Amino acid sequence: RLLRIGLIPGDGIGREVIPAGRRILEALPSSLGLRFEFADLHAGFETFEKTGAALPDRTVDVLRGECDGALFGAVSSPSKAVRGYSSPIVALRKKLDLYANVRPVKSVRGDAARKPIDMVIVRENTEDLYVKEEKTFDRPESEGGKYAEAIKRISERASSRIATMAGEIALRRQKIRESSPPGSSIHERPLVTITHKSNVLSQTDGLFRTACRAALSAPEFAGAVAVEEQIVDSMVYKLFRQPEAYDVIVAPNLYGDILSDGAAALVGSLGLVPSANVGEGFAIGEPCHGSAPDIEGKGIANPVATLRSTALMLEFLGEEEAAAKIYAAVDASLEEGRLLTPDLGGRATTEEVVVDILKRL
Amino acid sequence: RLLRIGLIPGDGIGREVIPAGRRILEALPSSLGLRFEFADLHAGFETFEKTGAALPDRTVDVLRGECDGALFGAVSSPSKAVRGYSSPIVALRKKLDLYANVRPVKSVRGDAARKPIDMVIVRENTEDLYVKEEKTFDRPESEGGKYAEAIKRISERASSRIATMAGEIALRRQKIRESSPPGSSIHERPLVTITHKSNVLSQTDGLFRTACRAALSAPEFAGAVAVEEQIVDSMVYKLFRQPEAYDVIVAPNLYGDILSDGAAALVGSLGLVPSANVGEGFAIGEPCHGSAPDIEGKGIANPVATLRSTALMLEFLGEEEAAAKIYAAVDASLEEGRLLTPDLGGRATTEEVVVDILKRL
Ligand SMILES: CC(C)[C@H](C(=O)O)[C@@H](O)C(=O)O
Ligand SMILES: CC(C)[C@H](C(=O)O)[C@@H](O)C(=O)O
Repeated sequence: RLLRIGLIPGDGIGREVIPAGRRILEALPSSLGLRFEFADLHAGFETFEKTGAALPDRTVDVLRGECDGALFGAVSSPSKAVRGYSSPIVALRKKLDLYANVRPVKSVRGDAARKPIDMVIVRENTEDLYVKEEKTFDRPESEGGKYAEAIKRISERASSRIATMAGEIALRRQKIRESSPPGSSIHERPLVTITHKSNVLSQTDGLFRTACRAALSAPEFAGAVAVEEQIVDSMVYKLFRQPEAYDVIVAPNLYGDILSDGAAALVGSLGLVPSANVGEGFAIGEPCHGSAPDIEGKGIANPVATLRSTALMLEFLGEEEAAAKIYAAVDASLEEGRLLTPDLGGRATTEEVVVDILKRL
Repeated sequence: RLLRIGLIPGDGIGREVIPAGRRILEALPSSLGLRFEFADLHAGFETFEKTGAALPDRTVDVLRGECDGALFGAVSSPSKAVRGYSSPIVALRKKLDLYANVRPVKSVRGDAARKPIDMVIVRENTEDLYVKEEKTFDRPESEGGKYAEAIKRISERASSRIATMAGEIALRRQKIRESSPPGSSIHERPLVTITHKSNVLSQTDGLFRTACRAALSAPEFAGAVAVEEQIVDSMVYKLFRQPEAYDVIVAPNLYGDILSDGAAALVGSLGLVPSANVGEGFAIGEPCHGSAPDIEGKGIANPVATLRSTALMLEFLGEEEAAAKIYAAVDASLEEGRLLTPDLGGRATTEEVVVDILKRL
C-alpha cells in the first residue's frame, strides 16, 4: 500500500520534530508492505508573514487531492493580535472536516513518581466556540461601552458522531486489552465519560450531553461500554486527583482543549502527548505541544509526541500493526529512560532520542 | 459595628457547613467591636421543588434591603435537565452585581507532599457564557439537524473592573507580605496573570486581554504590579506543573471556574478552598465545593472552606483584622493536622474540626 503523507512543520520546534515523523515512517520494516510518498507543505505564522496567508490554498488542495494523511508540527501565536492572522490548524480541521481530535495520554510504565494514567480524550473538533463567529459592538460609554460576543455552537449531529467515535475507541481499546497479558492495563472494562457544563449551559451543553447519551446507547455499545458524565470543572479536579479513573473522555471542543493540556501535565510533559485530527478516511497527526519559542533552534525538542502522533495517524488510516510497532519502540525507549530530552529531566538531544527509537523499531 | 449576614445553606452539605460560618462569627473576640445579626434564607434545588423557585424573591430582597453580606452553602445540580430550574448562585451573582469571584488557594505550610501554593484566582462573575443566552434551532435532518447556540459576552467595562480588582488584591497581598516575617511567603513581588484564549477568540478574549492590560497599566499599578498573560489551556498545564509561579490570576468567568477547581485539587481538597462573590459594598462567602450528595448527612463535610469563606467575606466588608483571626485559627488547626475530615485523609467530624478551630480563635 502506498500512503501519501503531507508534512506541515509550521513554526518553531514544529520544524525540528516533523522530520522525525518522516524518518520513522521510512524506517518501518518492509514486511509491513507500506510505502510512503511525502509532500512538503506550508502553514503557520512565518508563512503568513511571507505570503499573507497562514494556510495557503495550495496546502489545503494538496492535502485534499493528493494525500492520505498528514503530520502537522506547531504554529506560533503572535503575542499581539495581528490583523488577518488566525490559526491555520483550526481552519484545517474545519476545511477537511476532521471532526475528531483524539488525544491518548498514558504514563510510562514503571514511573513510580506518577499515578498510572491511560486515557484518551476524544475532542469534538469543528464547532463549539471554535466556529469563531465573533462580533464587536461599540456602545457609547453611557450605555455600557464596548463589548464583544462569540457564538458557541453545538449540533446534535457533531455531538453524536464524536460520541460514536469515543464509543468505538473504547471498544477498540478493550479488544487490545483482551489480547494483552493480564495486568498490563489499569482498566477492566470500557468506560466513556461525557464532559459538559449543562448546569449552566442547559441548551448547548445539554444538547451535547443528550446527543452523546443517545449515541452511546446504540446496540453496538449498549452493555459493552459503561457511560458516565461529569461537569467540566469538577472533571479538572478529578483529573488531578484520580486520573486513573478515566478511560475514554468525550468533550466539546474547548473543554477537550483544556482537559488534554491538564492530562498532559500529569504524565510529565506535553512533549509526550500525541493527537490525531480525524475525519472520514483522513487523519492528521499533530503533537499536542506548541511551537515552544523558548527552546527553538536548540535541537532539544522532545520528538516523542510527534512519533506517537505518526503512529496515531497510521492507526486511523487502518495501519494498526505499523502503529503498534512505533508505540512499542517509543515505550521501550521511555521505559529504559536512558535518553530523555530536558522536558523530562534528561540531557538528550532530539537527534539522540530519534536514533534510539528508530533502532528499536 | 453591626453586620447583618444572610445565611443561605442551600442543599446537601451546604446545610452542614453554613452553621459553622455563623458560629465562628459569633465566637469572634468582642474586642473587635463587631456584632452580627443573621437572616435565614432559602435557595437551591430543594427550595425549587418545594416552591417552584430556585431563588425566591424574598431571598434577593432581604439580601438587598437588609444585609451587609451573606454566606452561601452549595446547591445540587439535578442529574437531568429540569424545566424551569437554573442555578440560584449564578442568578444571585448577576442580580446583586457581585462582579468578582475571588478564590484564594493556599497550601498548608509544612505539607511536604505538595508544592507550596499561594495564589488567588479573581474570576469575572457576571458575563462570558454565564449570561445564559441560549437558543435551540430545529433544522430538518437534510439541512444538518438540530443545534443550539449560546452567547459568550465580554465587555470592556467588566473586564476592566475585574482586572482592577485583581491589581488591588495583588497590592494588598504585597502589603501583608511586607509586614510578615521574611520567608513566610513564596512570592517576592506582586504578579497578575491574565488568562484568555485570544488565539482562537480574538474579539471576545482579545477584548478581555486588552482591557485587563489597560486597567493594569493605571498609575496605581504601573511599576508596582508585574503583568503577564497566558492562554487558558497552557495555563492548566502550568498550574499542575508549576503552581508556585502564580500569585494573582485574572480570568473570564468560565476559565476562572475551571482553573479554580484545578487549583483546589492541588492543595488536596475542594473542602479547603473558599470564595467570595464581591460587589460594591457587598460580599457573599461561598465554599468552592458542591453539595456533595455522596457524604450528605454523615457529618463529615470539611468546614474549612466555609470558615475561610466567612473570613474572606469579612475581608471584603473591610474587617481585615477579624478575617485574619479566622485565617490564623484555621491555619493553626491544619498545620497541627490532628483533626482532619476524611477528604484530607483523616477521621474527624465536621463538629470536631469546628470546635478545634473555634478554640484557637
Ligand atoms: C493553537 C490552538 C488554536 C490549538 C487549539 O486551541 O485547538 C491548540 O491549543 C491545540 O490544542 O491544538
Ligand atoms: C454550580 C455552578 C453553577 C457554579 C459555577 O459554575 O459557577 C460552581 O461550579 C462554582 O464554581 O461556583
